[in-house]
Amino acid sequence: MRIPRHIGIIPDGNRRWAVSNSMTKDKGYAKGLMPGLSAFKYCQRLGVEELSIYGFTADNTKRPAAQRLAFTKACVEMVDIIRKEDAEILVVGNTGSDMFPRELMDLTTRQKFNKGGTRVNFLINYSWEWDLKTQNKSVSYYNSADISRIDLIIRWGGMRRLSGFLPVQSVYADFYVVDAMWPEYKDEHIDMALNWYQSQDVTLGG
Amino acid sequence: MRIPRHIGIIPDGNRRWAVSNSMTKDKGYAKGLMPGLSAFKYCQRLGVEELSIYGFTADNTKRPAAQRLAFTKACVEMVDIIRKEDAEILVVGNTGSDMFPRELMDLTTRQKFNKGGTRVNFLINYSWEWDLKTQNKSVSYYNSADISRIDLIIRWGGMRRLSGFLPVQSVYADFYVVDAMWPEYKDEHIDMALNWYQSQDVTLGG
Repeated sequence: MRIPRHIGIIPDGNRRWAVSNSMTKDKGYAKGLMPGLSAFKYCQRLGVEELSIYGFTADNTKRPAAQRLAFTKACVEMVDIIRKEDAEILVVGNTGSDMFPRELMDLTTRQKFNKGGTRVNFLINYSWEWDLKTQNKSVSYYNSADISRIDLIIRWGGMRRLSGFLPVQSVYADFYVVDAMWPEYKDEHIDMALNWYQSQDVTLGG
Repeated sequence: MRIPRHIGIIPDGNRRWAVSNSMTKDKGYAKGLMPGLSAFKYCQRLGVEELSIYGFTADNTKRPAAQRLAFTKACVEMVDIIRKEDAEILVVGNTGSDMFPRELMDLTTRQKFNKGGTRVNFLINYSWEWDLKTQNKSVSYYNSADISRIDLIIRWGGMRRLSGFLPVQSVYADFYVVDAMWPEYKDEHIDMALNWYQSQDVTLGG
């Protein structure tokens, strides 16, 4: 089986899941933590070398405060959970805004945890515009330069769009959409994406 | 019906269509001209205000010369066909390379033809890296700044990837894939995409 070197994860549908389960929207985010750990462990076992996980964007922070606090808390907890694994964690996002959680500041350069291994990139208070309008153009023309090209993007929640997810790294990525909401995550969703991925060629425009 | 203001067209599958019809790959491109005119006319009738059409990329020009000459010729002819319509045409691509067709140089600023109206952007010798690594950063941080945000991208030929298509304009675009090859274009493909598009919301990350 051809395993993608780098998978992008768009864990969408937390709010819709909450509403359809008679909860307020903000209650959906905490239900995304166990899926996050499961997806990490499953990808690690499959031999995926790098994962990029869409946490929250600068645009998302304009949502009602209860939601903003809930998804920020869930993202910080998600990072804490992965810190306990064999991983090399990088947090990418606009640290110059109050919306960036101070607890994650030390991870804006990649840190190795336990035996290291799988590279995990969390997008936290990320914005495609912030990414591309880099101030330090002598280094790179985009801010997320420590994140490599993505082979396969899997989006939960049924939407067929990138929603500003890493435009530079996604230019050649194959895009697979799971209709189930992220809190309903199952390893079989990744199996489905990988089965489909087997039938895709890699031409990079050549 | 909610009509997207701006549709991106990725007309893929010309070579596969040629091979499956017992032709050499280069023969597929000329079969994309009538589909291009049909798609333009159909979108214009529907009230779509802007179309961006993926012509060829700088990477594509590394293909065998017979293919390169064939797709360059097809793209120039496609522009000539749309010049006869009511359209406002812009060609976006790296003019600093020999691969850029000289005949299209006058269209690198937008030109109005006949009564004008529908804005049509052709990507010719385009490259996402060229787009983002703009030299003239005082004006914009990307070279394709005269092309607006895209609402809906339709890709023919079955692949579910952007292949470097306008990363900035595509960040929030809904992405619809038609399995048929581009030479097999039918207006109904656009109907299918629009029917699906009706069920998509527009949140722009909010």
